[in-house]
Amino acid sequence: MAKLRLYVDRMSQPSRAVLIFCLVNNIEFEEHTIRLNKGEHKRAEYKAINPLGLVPAIDDGGFKLYESHAILRYLVAVNPGVPDHWYPADMSRRAQVDCILDWHHTNLRRGAAGLIMNQVLAPSLGLQLNPNGSAEAESILKSSLMKLETIWLTGSNKFLGNARQPSIADLSLACELKQLQLLDEHAISTLLGPWAKVRSWLSAVENTTAPHFADVHLHLQYVSKRFKERRHQEKSEQRNITLPAAISAQNSKL
Amino acid sequence: MAKLRLYVDRMSQPSRAVLIFCLVNNIEFEEHTIRLNKGEHKRAEYKAINPLGLVPAIDDGGFKLYESHAILRYLVAVNPGVPDHWYPADMSRRAQVDCILDWHHTNLRRGAAGLIMNQVLAPSLGLQLNPNGSAEAESILKSSLMKLETIWLTGSNKFLGNARQPSIADLSLACELKQLQLLDEHAISTLLGPWAKVRSWLSAVENTTAPHFADVHLHLQYVSKRFKERRHQEKSEQRNITLPAAISAQNSKL
Repeated sequence: MAKLRLYVDRMSQPSRAVLIFCLVNNIEFEEHTIRLNKGEHKRAEYKAINPLGLVPAIDDGGFKLYESHAILRYLVAVNPGVPDHWYPADMSRRAQVDCILDWHHTNLRRGAAGLIMNQVLAPSLGLQLNPNGSAEAESILKSSLMKLETIWLTGSNKFLGNARQPSIADLSLACELKQLQLLDEHAISTLLGPWAKVRSWLSAVENTTAPHFADVHLHLQYVSKRFKERRHQEKSEQRNITLPAAISAQNSKL
Repeated sequence: MAKLRLYVDRMSQPSRAVLIFCLVNNIEFEEHTIRLNKGEHKRAEYKAINPLGLVPAIDDGGFKLYESHAILRYLVAVNPGVPDHWYPADMSRRAQVDCILDWHHTNLRRGAAGLIMNQVLAPSLGLQLNPNGSAEAESILKSSLMKLETIWLTGSNKFLGNARQPSIADLSLACELKQLQLLDEHAISTLLGPWAKVRSWLSAVENTTAPHFADVHLHLQYVSKRFKERRHQEKSEQRNITLPAAISAQNSKL
């Protein structure tokens, strides 16, 4: 039987969630990179796989599927060896996971992805940075982090919905939050600082899925480092511009 | 066993989807109305049921659940008598329904609900109408209607994903679109006019779930009529203001 094909870009957080899920659960796959910054997701050959022109998508022996949450649910269904905690068979526990996954779309995802897009990534995708979009997304993100801490992470167990082991909801939401490393350090600590349970949960997801979580995030980490260097360089250049101007102003007073 | 409790407002489209699903499938329930325009969803007693402060929510013998798609999936799971087409057991067909449900959140829902909120409903919920938010939502809605017609409604069968009978995705998306009747007739025909398959699909969902679809939408229809009358009255008042001004202008020329 043909191996499962994953169409992904490791800069996309739902792509990373699907990749990590397969690696953790020993599901064999071929990784096909669709470079978002080259516009490969908008090309006709890719739209034949996913007409929405988004990543991730899968091709499982001819069956094509997109939307990461649908993919994760499907991968559980067709791989009976996947441990139950990822998407519990118990109806109430499964419903709780579904509830968190559904909530995610218009809350944490809209906030985090909107902020990163409008504040950091837009230019590399040929779009303009949008301060209004960024402010709206930041407000949604802050409200979502508060709900994550006070609704989904109550109870004595480590994972979302007071579960003892991670579900596909933990993986999806953790990959979403992990992209915040593209912001500067002050912004990250302002956003995550107030939420101890969120930070501890994020570490728990990383540790439980080690080494795959960190491995799949290596590319993001590399890009994050480059953004940091660029910000540092821009600050130095501003200082160099400011310093002669200050000297010149001082001289004019003499 | 305690009857299923539904916490809903018939002005909320996901509330209507859950109500219609229960009526069509003879699932017994008690309807508890949580009036959004009275702020009842923000009260402490309701937040004990749904801490997110949104409708719909359910209480099934003590198990509380929110997010309409999660509720619909759960109601299928706990009611084995529900016909398979609503959420097929077949893994690929179920994945297709999941894919459409997931897509819905940030596309058709964000567009339609955003437009109606920012253009019509905000004042009745104590909020201001927002022209920028309305324009953004309209653009998302137009793009979503195009995708609905060209991606989800291709194939010879009537329902989403080329299905012969409706799924919970059809019900959720149809209730979303049905709220467009709150707009004026010109706006509705501009939005839906280009999409023959969407219009025909909407009728098919209404007919297949008759008489419940129409019954549950009666309140929306009533509110829609009131908005129409108000718009008509405002136009008459504008004419009455404009007419004396025109006569006065004419007189000044004599």
